[in-house]
Amino acid sequence: MDKTSEEIRHDFPALDQMVNQAPLAYLDNAATSQRPAPVLKTVEDFYFHDNANVHRGVHTLAQRATDRYEQARETVRQFLGAESPTEIIFTKGCTEALNLVASSYGMSQIQAGDEIVISIQEHHSNLIPWQQLAIQKGAILKYIDLTDEGEIDLTDAQEKITDQTKLVAINHASNVMGTITPLKTLVELAHQKGAVVVADGAQAVLHEPVNVRDLDVDFYALSGHKMLAPMGIGVLYGKASLLEKMPPYQYGGEMISRVQRQESSWAQAPYKFEAGTQNVAGAIGLAAAIDYLNNLSWGWIQQQESDLIQYATQELKKVDGLKLYGPKEAQRRSGVFSFNLGQIHPHDVATALDMAGVAVRAGHHCAQPLMDYLGVPATVRASFAFYNTKAEVDQLVTDLQATKEFFDHGA
Amino acid sequence: MDKTSEEIRHDFPALDQMVNQAPLAYLDNAATSQRPAPVLKTVEDFYFHDNANVHRGVHTLAQRATDRYEQARETVRQFLGAESPTEIIFTKGCTEALNLVASSYGMSQIQAGDEIVISIQEHHSNLIPWQQLAIQKGAILKYIDLTDEGEIDLTDAQEKITDQTKLVAINHASNVMGTITPLKTLVELAHQKGAVVVADGAQAVLHEPVNVRDLDVDFYALSGHKMLAPMGIGVLYGKASLLEKMPPYQYGGEMISRVQRQESSWAQAPYKFEAGTQNVAGAIGLAAAIDYLNNLSWGWIQQQESDLIQYATQELKKVDGLKLYGPKEAQRRSGVFSFNLGQIHPHDVATALDMAGVAVRAGHHCAQPLMDYLGVPATVRASFAFYNTKAEVDQLVTDLQATKEFFDHGA
Repeated sequence: MDKTSEEIRHDFPALDQMVNQAPLAYLDNAATSQRPAPVLKTVEDFYFHDNANVHRGVHTLAQRATDRYEQARETVRQFLGAESPTEIIFTKGCTEALNLVASSYGMSQIQAGDEIVISIQEHHSNLIPWQQLAIQKGAILKYIDLTDEGEIDLTDAQEKITDQTKLVAINHASNVMGTITPLKTLVELAHQKGAVVVADGAQAVLHEPVNVRDLDVDFYALSGHKMLAPMGIGVLYGKASLLEKMPPYQYGGEMISRVQRQESSWAQAPYKFEAGTQNVAGAIGLAAAIDYLNNLSWGWIQQQESDLIQYATQELKKVDGLKLYGPKEAQRRSGVFSFNLGQIHPHDVATALDMAGVAVRAGHHCAQPLMDYLGVPATVRASFAFYNTKAEVDQLVTDLQATKEFFDHGA
Repeated sequence: MDKTSEEIRHDFPALDQMVNQAPLAYLDNAATSQRPAPVLKTVEDFYFHDNANVHRGVHTLAQRATDRYEQARETVRQFLGAESPTEIIFTKGCTEALNLVASSYGMSQIQAGDEIVISIQEHHSNLIPWQQLAIQKGAILKYIDLTDEGEIDLTDAQEKITDQTKLVAINHASNVMGTITPLKTLVELAHQKGAVVVADGAQAVLHEPVNVRDLDVDFYALSGHKMLAPMGIGVLYGKASLLEKMPPYQYGGEMISRVQRQESSWAQAPYKFEAGTQNVAGAIGLAAAIDYLNNLSWGWIQQQESDLIQYATQELKKVDGLKLYGPKEAQRRSGVFSFNLGQIHPHDVATALDMAGVAVRAGHHCAQPLMDYLGVPATVRASFAFYNTKAEVDQLVTDLQATKEFFDHGA
């Protein structure tokens, strides 16, 4: 890594602006990350030099575009530690990747009476596809509960995952609770019972190295826009043996072997799952984001985040009336902090923080069953990335204190 | 319009390059268009100033991003002449838009024995979804034939569209035949029989103004990347009354009304169909592309293309042994020219042209049933956009003649 923290911060032009007369503190990284200038430069370079449709052309630009697209697939393969690039499917995002599995694998493999196990802390994108699959197939949807600390309850997981379980869908890091899922342990549990595991990696991939072979996970989904890449690109990793037996998800150009009037046959994975013109520039942008992360190094990224998490955990405890969800100890936390501030409505807290330049999210965070479980309608959520600073933690904490003061006593 | 043709050409940096020691003549616009610098500048501006996730945030960036995203929807509404922005659904491309209709409308509305009518010149993306729907539902898939000139045979259409027809799916312009579909006439025919019409506008939207209300078409799909916008964004227009009764296509964030453990209810259109984080930057890029086209004006664009089509039709006739598919008269043609050159394999023709800087496509153009119908395995395809020049037509024709010479007599 050849850049200072300050230089890295300068790679993200969006961070350097005033909002409501205060410096922006962008603490909404769990919703979407910011994008470094070098990633957008790579995308522009593609559009201005090599732009063409891929796979179908013999001309020079089409060949260059195809080479760059397939190189991007190889970059993702390495990033996830997959065995083969044929196990890497480009999608428009994590949500589509999860829907692809539910629709293609789920609809073809899940039968009436089968059990699908998810956790109560799933994002809607890793919940509703399984709920609707269960309804359609007459399968049974079960939820793993959380411990008092807000982590996956492994004892409950052992009870819920049974010989009837055919599929376990779980996130690798929660978008609300600030927890990391013991994914490898859950994969072992599931495999002992013969179930496949679908992991939602949306909240993990910017924060820790992932190795799908080490995890032995069957499917792994991620979003580019949550890890510095452009919007409109995501990835589904799937084990080759599973992808092979799955029917296509969408139909169109490039995913076929032979099309006749009344029947068609399909290409091999990954092309079987990539109907129509793909977001080639998006895939190239995702590869550029991975290159950017690799250049920073996971060691540096994780140290930065660990310092921020330590500091934020400590400082947020000082805010009078702040109830933090999830683990109390910093070393068990991710950079996602969900909380409520006394009886103040979360949207009011977020609005007050925005008036002071602090961007946080308030709401159900696309996790309504989790909100019901926690017994709250909504929370405030501050979520960090490696480019955030301790000064931004201070800004958050100071403004939370001022907000509490204001609502308690008036201006 | 305040730019000269030369200045417009300069807006497209990709066009200004040498390929194999010759100036690039990019004649593969039916596969994907090039993108003007102002469109990419708008996308970069969004990422560097307003980047946030939409709809779910109260903070300033989230509000700005939401405003720009919904403004993009309004720009598309105006572009298509739709009645309401709620009829505009953002997708990842035209293929996904067509799959959405087949999956959501088709699976819920088509019954065994119903007839689905498409044409023999459909792209796979507007063919396989209906074919597979018919297989799954026990419906009947019928094909409208072409006239000797390669146009939709309206007499045949009248025979094929019957009281049993529930859905007609047809392109607005062929990606192979160089024809424009008499869409309005077909919509009238279909509506008389009570069938809905799904139009694939991928090949039309860069070349002519479209008004879905005037056409009275029920669904209209398009791809951004074929009309100057970034890859990874497309649109489905659907009449409000139809969208209302359709179930969701994918499940995830933003498309819900209420999620409980074992059941969920859905948001209204268009959000019901936009699960997960959308390609916000892509939508904003598409709106920028529409602004760019509006600034050029359709009058100017169509005059440019008409001149090019006239000239290309006339010049291609001079190439010895060239068999052109589709209409012979320029005024009945689009800017798509499919042909074969004597007995030379289309891929050899395309490779030879590429050696001289001319980018054309060779293959089945994702229209295998059409190739079977034409009795050829493949064609060469040169496809024009308004930024192409007569000099590029000359370059194409000269190199075709040289290629024919070479294959006939050797070097």
